[in-house]
Amino acid sequence: MIYMGCDYAEGAAPEILNALVRTNMEQSEGYSMDEHCMNAAKLIKETIGRDDVDVHFTVGGTQTNITVIASALRPFEAVIAPATGHICRHETGGVEATGHKIFHVATEDGKITAKQIEDAKLFHTDEHFVKPKMVYISQPTELGTMYSLKELEEISEVCRKYDLYLYIDGARLAVGLTNSATDFDIKDLPRLCDVFYLGGTKIGMLFGEAIVIVNDKLKPDFRFMIKHCGAMLAKGRLLGVQFEEMFKDQGKLYYALGSHANAMADKLRAGLAELGFQFAVDSPTNQIFIRVSDAQAEALTEYVVYEPDGTLDPGYQRIRFCTSWATPEEDVDKLLEVLKKIKEVG
Amino acid sequence: MIYMGCDYAEGAAPEILNALVRTNMEQSEGYSMDEHCMNAAKLIKETIGRDDVDVHFTVGGTQTNITVIASALRPFEAVIAPATGHICRHETGGVEATGHKIFHVATEDGKITAKQIEDAKLFHTDEHFVKPKMVYISQPTELGTMYSLKELEEISEVCRKYDLYLYIDGARLAVGLTNSATDFDIKDLPRLCDVFYLGGTKIGMLFGEAIVIVNDKLKPDFRFMIKHCGAMLAKGRLLGVQFEEMFKDQGKLYYALGSHANAMADKLRAGLAELGFQFAVDSPTNQIFIRVSDAQAEALTEYVVYEPDGTLDPGYQRIRFCTSWATPEEDVDKLLEVLKKIKEVG
Amino acid sequence: MIYMGCDYAEGAAPEILNALVRTNMEQSEGYSMDEHCMNAAKLIKETIGRDDVDVHFTVGGTQTNITVIASALRPFEAVIAPATGHICRHETGGVEATGHKIFHVATEDGKITAKQIEDAKLFHTDEHFVKPKMVYISQPTELGTMYSLKELEEISEVCRKYDLYLYIDGARLAVGLTNSATDFDIKDLPRLCDVFYLGGTKIGMLFGEAIVIVNDKLKPDFRFMIKHCGAMLAKGRLLGVQFEEMFKDQGKLYYALGSHANAMADKLRAGLAELGFQFAVDSPTNQIFIRVSDAQAEALTEYVVYEPDGTLDPGYQRIRFCTSWATPEEDVDKLLEVLKKIKEVG
Amino acid sequence: MIYMGCDYAEGAAPEILNALVRTNMEQSEGYSMDEHCMNAAKLIKETIGRDDVDVHFTVGGTQTNITVIASALRPFEAVIAPATGHICRHETGGVEATGHKIFHVATEDGKITAKQIEDAKLFHTDEHFVKPKMVYISQPTELGTMYSLKELEEISEVCRKYDLYLYIDGARLAVGLTNSATDFDIKDLPRLCDVFYLGGTKIGMLFGEAIVIVNDKLKPDFRFMIKHCGAMLAKGRLLGVQFEEMFKDQGKLYYALGSHANAMADKLRAGLAELGFQFAVDSPTNQIFIRVSDAQAEALTEYVVYEPDGTLDPGYQRIRFCTSWATPEEDVDKLLEVLKKIKEVG
Repeated sequence: MIYMGCDYAEGAAPEILNALVRTNMEQSEGYSMDEHCMNAAKLIKETIGRDDVDVHFTVGGTQTNITVIASALRPFEAVIAPATGHICRHETGGVEATGHKIFHVATEDGKITAKQIEDAKLFHTDEHFVKPKMVYISQPTELGTMYSLKELEEISEVCRKYDLYLYIDGARLAVGLTNSATDFDIKDLPRLCDVFYLGGTKIGMLFGEAIVIVNDKLKPDFRFMIKHCGAMLAKGRLLGVQFEEMFKDQGKLYYALGSHANAMADKLRAGLAELGFQFAVDSPTNQIFIRVSDAQAEALTEYVVYEPDGTLDPGYQRIRFCTSWATPEEDVDKLLEVLKKIKEVG
Repeated sequence: MIYMGCDYAEGAAPEILNALVRTNMEQSEGYSMDEHCMNAAKLIKETIGRDDVDVHFTVGGTQTNITVIASALRPFEAVIAPATGHICRHETGGVEATGHKIFHVATEDGKITAKQIEDAKLFHTDEHFVKPKMVYISQPTELGTMYSLKELEEISEVCRKYDLYLYIDGARLAVGLTNSATDFDIKDLPRLCDVFYLGGTKIGMLFGEAIVIVNDKLKPDFRFMIKHCGAMLAKGRLLGVQFEEMFKDQGKLYYALGSHANAMADKLRAGLAELGFQFAVDSPTNQIFIRVSDAQAEALTEYVVYEPDGTLDPGYQRIRFCTSWATPEEDVDKLLEVLKKIKEVG
Repeated sequence: MIYMGCDYAEGAAPEILNALVRTNMEQSEGYSMDEHCMNAAKLIKETIGRDDVDVHFTVGGTQTNITVIASALRPFEAVIAPATGHICRHETGGVEATGHKIFHVATEDGKITAKQIEDAKLFHTDEHFVKPKMVYISQPTELGTMYSLKELEEISEVCRKYDLYLYIDGARLAVGLTNSATDFDIKDLPRLCDVFYLGGTKIGMLFGEAIVIVNDKLKPDFRFMIKHCGAMLAKGRLLGVQFEEMFKDQGKLYYALGSHANAMADKLRAGLAELGFQFAVDSPTNQIFIRVSDAQAEALTEYVVYEPDGTLDPGYQRIRFCTSWATPEEDVDKLLEVLKKIKEVG
Repeated sequence: MIYMGCDYAEGAAPEILNALVRTNMEQSEGYSMDEHCMNAAKLIKETIGRDDVDVHFTVGGTQTNITVIASALRPFEAVIAPATGHICRHETGGVEATGHKIFHVATEDGKITAKQIEDAKLFHTDEHFVKPKMVYISQPTELGTMYSLKELEEISEVCRKYDLYLYIDGARLAVGLTNSATDFDIKDLPRLCDVFYLGGTKIGMLFGEAIVIVNDKLKPDFRFMIKHCGAMLAKGRLLGVQFEEMFKDQGKLYYALGSHANAMADKLRAGLAELGFQFAVDSPTNQIFIRVSDAQAEALTEYVVYEPDGTLDPGYQRIRFCTSWATPEEDVDKLLEVLKKIKEVG
């Protein structure tokens, strides 16, 4: 069976696992108060070129989003997000569980525009409405698309105009940064947003996300918030050890792992195009959405684990293939073989 | 100044105020444990033709919605509602404050269809999504439109098919029941839904809503929930006294007050049509939405309090006039005079 | 039957009810944006001698406490309160519903001391504990006792030392202000605390509480918070009209109503002492707690509505009598007659 | 430096780490839907002797407590717990964040009694109080003490009498099960309680807790709840792999690791007694609390990481030493050497 369902089918990149093995019997304080975490934070600050930020580590993306958002907002304040955003669709109401409304904005491609943000803000006129106070975007998005630097700058500008925090979910940021379609740099993020996170789980760590808080208003007492949300790892140094490995040597491993996911995706995408499959989303990154018939979808399940992503017109559906840091090139080849046969199913 | 901004510009209908004066120095237990509340519940049960329901009293609509919804759902369960629903737009995130997501469904006219409910339910496929468990509708809707009996029956059916509670917000139910376009009866409600409320605030009470719980699963410990939500009135008998007055003589006063709002709306609607104003919504009830130019909207503010309701195409906006149990016929006449002049503004 | 169970067995003081009748058909904006509310706020500011505070109106005490506390605190911040406090015992977890822990402090007499506050604050040492950020006290307390001015000043000082907001629940403040044991003035409150409320429900209004926000940090967007908590009254002017009546003429009616409750309590207390009943709490205000045998408690139920308040040693219990603005002197006389007979039950 | 501050200073037991290394490049479904998790659940069911339970895996204790409690309770329902319980003191209000009050019961030794549970339940008389619906205990407790089988049976009985769920936090259960003072068996737990968890983090796993749901009422939709609370691990099989290793061969490793912690604690305890230190708690397990002077506490910091645990009488404090699965015997020896010197500080 070929696994292309998600970007976390395997464990950790060997370098990361080795680091965990190497440091296993070290003794340290818990709760990320150890030297590995301190060092990992230092390395991340160097990589993003900012020393005046706070860095915190958490285990997974959903708990990261919950913690960041609930920490930033007063009870009646709300988040504006594209309707395909991870917090809107894939977190079982975790953000609402903390009392905050998310105002969903429908998009074509998973990307919200500066104009849509302004409209959403202006729609909320008084105290009978929630008060939008944060914009949530993902880079790359949940549809595999990416904001250009210009789009990010426009979004950043409109957020500042309306006193909205900008939060960037970077679960797959390494893929975004190493993609051929990319025109932004990691150092642009702290300039443009108030808080973001660098994902580890989907980029070859066992688990782990690094939250970077840029805006001073969002810094106080954040560790209370992490613990309050059940997001503080007892053996916190596991996060530090992994992120140290990721970000030493100017983030060499982090970029390399992202780059591999892109290379495999590029190969798969080229093959799909050649076979004449129709792309359901025009995505340049490691998430590839295609349109298949119900019969094709069914036939595929024998060979490959993919992610179903809803029905299109009757008889057709959208499915996702996802490459990762770990995808063997031979699996891409095998998948393309399978798809060639499937294509004939019609 | 003419008040047509909302249906609660005045205090209470004289009969209701008299009842409060008459009973003022009676002594009773607090928290709606008194005989007036018991009697009011009995009268409501008679009016709706069901003795096997629970009736509870609260002060206002928002707190009613919060209490009913938060009582019915487990933490990860969600509400499906038309995006114009009161809980979506006008409650400052009160439902989300209790931890529940509302899944907004865009509609043309404020009315969600059975098909849209089914689609919304099927969109949520597994434990990474919230689990829709309740449908919220208002009758009449926040756009003044009404569900036909057939539509209500279809909605009820789809709710039962997918094990969704159906909750009907009856803030303006008296207007709906006495409208010439109505084809449903108050006795249809307990047959079709799991819980609903009969609004008092917008129908001539100082304040007060009567929650009717039909589904046995939703009955246990509801008084704990009312108190937990800060929705239990200390001098609870004030609610009982008012609802007694409303529902004695088979709901005579309740129907009469709703009927007046309709009569005034009908007259205003006819006048607007004659003057050539364009209706922004095809509403048969006491909320009338028209399209006016920005200049007209501005000119109107000198004579009448209305409710702005968003911009349409550039230079035009939607405004709402609202008649009520208390609207003097001469105010309708005066408003039509004003509108005649305004029409010329263009 | 004699009603001494609580201080809200009746409706409103006649002056207040008359004001509601007089203004009933006035038309005004909703949600406390009307002139009566503006004027009531002005009168309250004059009475407390401070023009730089914000005044907001809500319907009941529990929703007031929920709104004030949830507005002031970040998610991991907590309230320190005496364990007998209204928010601890009588609100069905309404404060916890907003996500905040209350740290209960056991007291002899319902009064927390400055030393206990300091100890409670110091008990919480790091981010694994909640962070106490507010102290909640009631004046008078739920046991009818009162803080002296010196005690209030000590509490205020310790709150400032540890950066804790001080919130005073004044549900029965009028009784406290007009009590013979009182050594503080209403003008002391804004000097000593960050936010407090002047209760109306228990002092002769149909309903209504006036929140006074002193600390600038607690002022922004408070109306969003009121609506978010379901605590915004549609016909908000009902609150304004009632508070206008209370606070015109330098709060003449407010003080007179509180004074009557005290006078009736003093008479009852003297009678109880003469009859040899044992006071379970040394309370100078309108809540009187006595120790009675189970047989006496049972016998009393035939004549008087009182509030049971827990068991003491086996065979004995604590009960509460509560006088109010409305208590007829003859009811006190009748109750003392009854108690004389009951005394013989033993 | 000697580490005796907590039981998670190191990484994982070698067997567990090896299992993670061995399975690292396997591909599997995420979110604990994989075969390792299925198998681990099967092994746990065998170990506890019950096939009719549900087993779920989470990362850490705080998020486990939050998820279990929030899943079981309606909004106004509360938990009764000893005031030293982990949910009361060490979770930064995580349970309250889900809206539930915890009713703290003061205890001598961290153990609540059946009588205290009954009293706490009876204290809550009506809908103005929260409704206690769950009892939370830890075995062993946060003070290192243990409930006897008889005490557990009494607690279980009182819970059933009053329709309270009994939830047992087993963060250190392996230590409890292998302690010389133990008279209960792991198979007693599903007989006595409704839900419990088997801790992994403090017993030699990198992280991980296994929730066992016994009561059918608590089973439905629990995976929704895990995700809703941000507690679902993407690479869920990491939990399965670790628990498989723990519970294969009838839980051989699980018991062995607990046993080592006890052996080291026994040796340390004996040494402390010989040196004449005063035990602040009479604990038989791996948490040892002693009374030291402030000077001794200060002097110790040069040699050992311990956990401060509050002040006692002036000049004295309570500190905790904690042994674990990983404590080297030579560290116990070294610590006793240090303590011998410290003893002379006085």
